[in-house]
Amino acid sequence: MCRWMAYSGEPILAEELLFRPTHSIIDQSLHAKLQGYTTNGDGFGIGWYGDSPTPAVYKSSHPAWNDRDLHEIAGQIRTPLLFAHIRASSGTPVQRSNCHPFRYGRWLWMHNGSLAGFQKMKRDLMMEVDPSLFANIEGSTDTETLFFLALTYGLEEDPPNAVARAVGFIEEVGHRHGIEYPVHMTVATSDGESIWAFRYSSEKSTSSLYFSTDVAQLQQLYPDLEMLNKLGAETRLIVSEPLGDLPGAWNEVPEGSWGVVRPGEDEIQPFLPVAAKS
Amino acid sequence: MCRWMAYSGEPILAEELLFRPTHSIIDQSLHAKLQGYTTNGDGFGIGWYGDSPTPAVYKSSHPAWNDRDLHEIAGQIRTPLLFAHIRASSGTPVQRSNCHPFRYGRWLWMHNGSLAGFQKMKRDLMMEVDPSLFANIEGSTDTETLFFLALTYGLEEDPPNAVARAVGFIEEVGHRHGIEYPVHMTVATSDGESIWAFRYSSEKSTSSLYFSTDVAQLQQLYPDLEMLNKLGAETRLIVSEPLGDLPGAWNEVPEGSWGVVRPGEDEIQPFLPVAAKS
Amino acid sequence: MCRWMAYSGEPILAEELLFRPTHSIIDQSLHAKLQGYTTNGDGFGIGWYGDSPTPAVYKSSHPAWNDRDLHEIAGQIRTPLLFAHIRASSGTPVQRSNCHPFRYGRWLWMHNGSLAGFQKMKRDLMMEVDPSLFANIEGSTDTETLFFLALTYGLEEDPPNAVARAVGFIEEVGHRHGIEYPVHMTVATSDGESIWAFRYSSEKSTSSLYFSTDVAQLQQLYPDLEMLNKLGAETRLIVSEPLGDLPGAWNEVPEGSWGVVRPGEDEIQPFLPVAAKS
Amino acid sequence: MCRWMAYSGEPILAEELLFRPTHSIIDQSLHAKLQGYTTNGDGFGIGWYGDSPTPAVYKSSHPAWNDRDLHEIAGQIRTPLLFAHIRASSGTPVQRSNCHPFRYGRWLWMHNGSLAGFQKMKRDLMMEVDPSLFANIEGSTDTETLFFLALTYGLEEDPPNAVARAVGFIEEVGHRHGIEYPVHMTVATSDGESIWAFRYSSEKSTSSLYFSTDVAQLQQLYPDLEMLNKLGAETRLIVSEPLGDLPGAWNEVPEGSWGVVRPGEDEIQPFLPVAAKS
Repeated sequence: MCRWMAYSGEPILAEELLFRPTHSIIDQSLHAKLQGYTTNGDGFGIGWYGDSPTPAVYKSSHPAWNDRDLHEIAGQIRTPLLFAHIRASSGTPVQRSNCHPFRYGRWLWMHNGSLAGFQKMKRDLMMEVDPSLFANIEGSTDTETLFFLALTYGLEEDPPNAVARAVGFIEEVGHRHGIEYPVHMTVATSDGESIWAFRYSSEKSTSSLYFSTDVAQLQQLYPDLEMLNKLGAETRLIVSEPLGDLPGAWNEVPEGSWGVVRPGEDEIQPFLPVAAKS
Repeated sequence: MCRWMAYSGEPILAEELLFRPTHSIIDQSLHAKLQGYTTNGDGFGIGWYGDSPTPAVYKSSHPAWNDRDLHEIAGQIRTPLLFAHIRASSGTPVQRSNCHPFRYGRWLWMHNGSLAGFQKMKRDLMMEVDPSLFANIEGSTDTETLFFLALTYGLEEDPPNAVARAVGFIEEVGHRHGIEYPVHMTVATSDGESIWAFRYSSEKSTSSLYFSTDVAQLQQLYPDLEMLNKLGAETRLIVSEPLGDLPGAWNEVPEGSWGVVRPGEDEIQPFLPVAAKS
Repeated sequence: MCRWMAYSGEPILAEELLFRPTHSIIDQSLHAKLQGYTTNGDGFGIGWYGDSPTPAVYKSSHPAWNDRDLHEIAGQIRTPLLFAHIRASSGTPVQRSNCHPFRYGRWLWMHNGSLAGFQKMKRDLMMEVDPSLFANIEGSTDTETLFFLALTYGLEEDPPNAVARAVGFIEEVGHRHGIEYPVHMTVATSDGESIWAFRYSSEKSTSSLYFSTDVAQLQQLYPDLEMLNKLGAETRLIVSEPLGDLPGAWNEVPEGSWGVVRPGEDEIQPFLPVAAKS
Repeated sequence: MCRWMAYSGEPILAEELLFRPTHSIIDQSLHAKLQGYTTNGDGFGIGWYGDSPTPAVYKSSHPAWNDRDLHEIAGQIRTPLLFAHIRASSGTPVQRSNCHPFRYGRWLWMHNGSLAGFQKMKRDLMMEVDPSLFANIEGSTDTETLFFLALTYGLEEDPPNAVARAVGFIEEVGHRHGIEYPVHMTVATSDGESIWAFRYSSEKSTSSLYFSTDVAQLQQLYPDLEMLNKLGAETRLIVSEPLGDLPGAWNEVPEGSWGVVRPGEDEIQPFLPVAAKS
């Protein structure tokens, strides 16, 4: 398992998001609260969008909590859309190519959870990946395979449908291999404009996922809280666990749903895997 | 802070000590119980004696829990005397040269604790290190400086006295800099024949330290416990926290004392810092 | 490309093989002579056989030349059969799981060379790997895929035939993808008893490979050379480039051949790829 | 020894400087030409000035040539003043805290060369460092000690004089220890506005150092060379070895001199160490 955080809004210094909050994602690398265990020290990664056509990533196999370069770089990155992830390996090697977020073209992808019995399913899952995409898989994680299945099923055109099909396929393969609950995921993915988030598990009991309350609403709740003035109106945060304790600031993403954050209306919908043959 | 473990006895496969126990030191890197926090992921190190004139060390800046090479090497090392340490940095960089155990000639040294206000005291402490030893200091930790002060004061001839003088000196320097409780330590050091252990803090409230009950005694307590037959009669373990839950197997090293494990009689004595001018 | 060295003979301290020779493999990591370029700094690995049922490995993504732990460990390993490899990546990530030697059961495998256009062929090659072996592939190198194809074709029963079939298959796949010369390799593989070595390329112009002259012969050539008395009569070395300059000590493995070093008679035979459908 | 590169001029994407030139500093990490050996694989670092009050640094103990994060970050950094350095260790450990450039406040410092017999001189040199600065020394290199001696002697007020006094002091200490030629250096240091460069050795035979010809002059020499139009008029490069072969583009910094690049007039002056007692 892991923890992650996605930000969308006015350009902000990465340092503000990664290190300032009371229970920042960096703090969660040592003191996660909603996980069953506290440590996510098998590497970390950040991805962000800026002027380049594609997003940049900075990833390392070392724990996040004492990484000096992360501090340095976070103080230099100003971005309107940031992904951050801290890793707790579910068995695959601790190496940079197994850290999230993963990238393909303009897309970023990160995941908390696992595909149960992945070693048994691996060949079947990888053979389903589109041949033109196959060689792009660089690491050995279940997350990366899930990403490339979603790409195979049209992530770039219709993310919720692509992910639904990927999950449906994996569940079918899993059942064939005698795995009762193959999929456990909270996922975030983005094309640099919108962020799609997913909270689903085959067992219907998924790791936590929260989204932030609208800043304008929070300003009404807390008219004297200065800190809120620093955040733009378009600020959206989607997180594995809340970055702080402010009542009313965090809302649970419902079990078995997907949501999208984008200019204009956000939305939340039920997430329903699509069976492979349908 | 950190956790450590020292073993002395019949030659044993390092893997047996590092990975087999229920609450092994590797388990303590993620799930320490007696520390106030659970994670020691800022590197690790092992040191062991064998046929070579000097002990060998294997150290890494990565966390211990997922280090594949540690597994590999532990399965290859058979030794009568092993030091193992997992690090939680008190501020200095996470790098191999700051991992314990430190080595000088035949001596190994490891430490759990810190020298409060070390940055203020550092120059004074390093100036006191014998000029012929100064250039041997490779890292930037308080531990290494403490080690070289002990060497300066004659660790190789009379370890308890040397450490007492080192601590006395540091306390005096600390007080001059307005540091009320300069020293906090559990320390193990060895020349390959004996192991000296220390439990002391200026505040008289030190991290935990335990030594194992005599194996013969344990066999009388638990005549049916097979596992005990694998351990030789000369087995001694000194640990930051017990490796398992067997009642009667672990004995607390008293606050403010030192002990020595060696062929023949072991002993425990009060530890009294020796003031610099005396 | 890379450099490697395989040793078979009386148990020897790894340090003697890795660091003592004038042009040791560690020296070759910085000063390779027969390669067209001098540096192999994308990681290294050693594998060795001892008392354990399976060989141990120690691998790192850092360059070999300044790796302190390699020195430490080499001074502790006494083995009758050692593989050592220094890596120059042909494009895949620099990470421990991409370092050689690779291991499966009792087998070790290392390689100098590459599979041209590997990214194009990768899916076809991986699909041919036996499903029961597929999930054992942890890295992303062409070398590891070649190893697992050889395993698929019966490396554990008949190594030369298995490798010939693997190469034949890869050449056929390569040609289908418009790759003229798909395979370039010097390979060593062992089960702990024998070492098989291969020197072959589709272009019939392969990286260098040498084997050492029989020690008894060398003693006749150089009756006064003391160093030879330290080497047992069964000493065999197979190397990418000679470890020193002693005339008559090194013999080129012929282009397009395979050889085996084992108790009793060694042999060298022509290497002929076996086409997939035959 | 090492190689380095300093840039001053219009804000430029770090990627343009680090990767685009034919013989970029990243290329020099594998293929240095003017050094006597080709490889600088013991780590690297970049430092750059931007909106923050102090410069940022990104450093790693891995070789530069295959570092993916360096590529990522270089594509995101736009800066008017950049330092880049690739390391070949002269004996001290390969670790991030021993990589250049070093930083103190607004100052960056990097160095090619060494202090001969540094281990013998180390204590004397470190004791001369101002007590208020002492604890800032984090690594174990001669370079960092030289930097802090320069700071001790007033680098922040008068860099040429401070460096002259530091060198004078080291030469005197060296001679006392029987070291004939204690200092060998090309150094660059900056406060974010100007860059001071030094080329000096006690033996009067120093590693190469070049500065770039004025861009306007180059445009007159090569009116058709498009690439020059991308460079602003204020472009200044100071390098261990030229980044390419364009005749007339590179000028040797004279042996035993210092120079400064800044808004307005640059200058070059003889470098004369100042003896400690004077």
